[in-house]
Amino acid sequence: MSGAKQVISIAIDIMGSDFAPESEIKGAIEFLKENSDKNIRLYLVGKEDVIKSEIDKNPSIKNYEYEIVNADQVITMSDEATAGVKSKKNSSISIGLDLLKENKVNAFISAGNTGAMLSTATLKLGRINGVSRPTIGSFFPTLKSNPTLLLDVGANSEVKPQFLYEFAVMGQIYLSEMYNIKNPSIGLLNIGEEEKKGTETVQEAYQLLKESGLNFIGNIEGRDIFPGTADIVVCDGFVGNIILKFAESFIVFFKETLKKYANESAFNKLKVGLMASTIKDIFRGFDYQDHGGVPLLGVNGVVIIGHGKSTPKAIKNMLNTALITYTKEINKKIEISLQSS
Amino acid sequence: MSGAKQVISIAIDIMGSDFAPESEIKGAIEFLKENSDKNIRLYLVGKEDVIKSEIDKNPSIKNYEYEIVNADQVITMSDEATAGVKSKKNSSISIGLDLLKENKVNAFISAGNTGAMLSTATLKLGRINGVSRPTIGSFFPTLKSNPTLLLDVGANSEVKPQFLYEFAVMGQIYLSEMYNIKNPSIGLLNIGEEEKKGTETVQEAYQLLKESGLNFIGNIEGRDIFPGTADIVVCDGFVGNIILKFAESFIVFFKETLKKYANESAFNKLKVGLMASTIKDIFRGFDYQDHGGVPLLGVNGVVIIGHGKSTPKAIKNMLNTALITYTKEINKKIEISLQSS
Repeated sequence: MSGAKQVISIAIDIMGSDFAPESEIKGAIEFLKENSDKNIRLYLVGKEDVIKSEIDKNPSIKNYEYEIVNADQVITMSDEATAGVKSKKNSSISIGLDLLKENKVNAFISAGNTGAMLSTATLKLGRINGVSRPTIGSFFPTLKSNPTLLLDVGANSEVKPQFLYEFAVMGQIYLSEMYNIKNPSIGLLNIGEEEKKGTETVQEAYQLLKESGLNFIGNIEGRDIFPGTADIVVCDGFVGNIILKFAESFIVFFKETLKKYANESAFNKLKVGLMASTIKDIFRGFDYQDHGGVPLLGVNGVVIIGHGKSTPKAIKNMLNTALITYTKEINKKIEISLQSS
Repeated sequence: MSGAKQVISIAIDIMGSDFAPESEIKGAIEFLKENSDKNIRLYLVGKEDVIKSEIDKNPSIKNYEYEIVNADQVITMSDEATAGVKSKKNSSISIGLDLLKENKVNAFISAGNTGAMLSTATLKLGRINGVSRPTIGSFFPTLKSNPTLLLDVGANSEVKPQFLYEFAVMGQIYLSEMYNIKNPSIGLLNIGEEEKKGTETVQEAYQLLKESGLNFIGNIEGRDIFPGTADIVVCDGFVGNIILKFAESFIVFFKETLKKYANESAFNKLKVGLMASTIKDIFRGFDYQDHGGVPLLGVNGVVIIGHGKSTPKAIKNMLNTALITYTKEINKKIEISLQSS
């Protein structure tokens, strides 16, 4: 076997993003180019004719190993979360996850409907031993050199204290493996610093985290996220989702306010024009493309979810995230960690 | 009685803000000057010697009607919320609220410890008939001409559906009376637009609001706050408090990021220098001074709470808010509205 490199197979939903199939195919090519030293095979899942016609526009993918897997249906952003197991069993999300379930691939990525990915993956793949609920995280820019991972951002609108503890464990393994952050600090999102603040659930979670052996630094308030006070912030998916969407809207708010201001006078327009590139530089931390999607942590398989507005760069980074999550055996490490706790 | 104007008495906590007593006395003078056509009497509550020495620095207050009410104790920002009724019964907050309870004044304002104000006011004054839980709101800047009132922002970390409905009623009366917004629109903060999204509590609240006769426009997501999609957004105090503190930290984050960027090169420094005044203009909507504090809605008395960092202008506006809340009989209108529903 010496010299023969292991083949790593990744399935990619070609129909997922708002810019599908172009972003997906271009991102896939960039990924394959970057990882040409490895033995990688991509499974392009989606409508065969759509994929073939996109490949005609981007023939350089033919230099690499790939296979087209036809999926007649597409889950749109407006479909129900259960579509993948009910009305659209032949969707790219369902078929991609089937490939993963049947061990034909090592990972699956999609920039499609997050709710459908979550439900379909959880139902098809099941949970990692020891995990009560899968979770989705998101990276927030901070004033420090590394972003903060906030989880859950929407998978679980109601949680038990144990779930919050498990989110912390999963986040800790993910951050330390993916980003080489040693012993990342963990904060519990709350409305005050004191142990006895907030709901009963967070008060109990506080005790679990305090006794866990994790690098728990206590309660984190809304104002502590941007300063990067904790590497990982755990919360229920209700508040996490609202915070995430609120943060994303800040850039829109800022740009729109800037536009209104520019329209007030010619002098204002000039000033705003001079600022444009600076503002762009400043907001680079908000660029979700760089983070390459987020793993659906806790399901029994490597599943990476991307932003609907994924560019080729974002898709490439999602594929890289999938590759590392698989090769570093993050799921196995989560299982071991939760079983020994 | 013809010609004799009604005396309106307002008690003000002179020890409350981070800049006390200076902000309080200067703000009081500005308020009295602005309302010199009315018959107003201020009760300055706090340490007598501190107040007297501040008046020596600002003798123009002597042109108006005022009275000093000594309070030996001060509730600090680090005191427990129960301090006002336990360890610090002689604090300016307690004594000010006693004046209100005993009908010696028509309103009380403080820029001190919000938790202590909430607890002490609720215990001393009780609730308006028909109100299950008092609430505190906060104004968020929007892309529209008027800000959005978000409530609750911390008074109730756990809520029942009925509380959320009552917050909507109180917010609706407050906005329409204070800002002449006719039939303000009401949104329910949630993690999706559909009726069946989110926790059981918000799903039930959705039905209550839908059947209420209020101008309910459905669920509002985190991204809908800044666009000003709803005039009023209701949520539990856990998510509301986190969102509020997170929003306040945006400006800090932005300024710090700008500073870091400026320090990268002399050219960057120049660019940032040119932007400074523009940025200031753009963030004017975030200036809590203009909103003049927020009422503690639902307690049986006019109580206005201010930001710890209240400037004289903020104090002046808080006094104006108190005056209008009292003269427009907002509490009576809340009572009538909730009893008839």
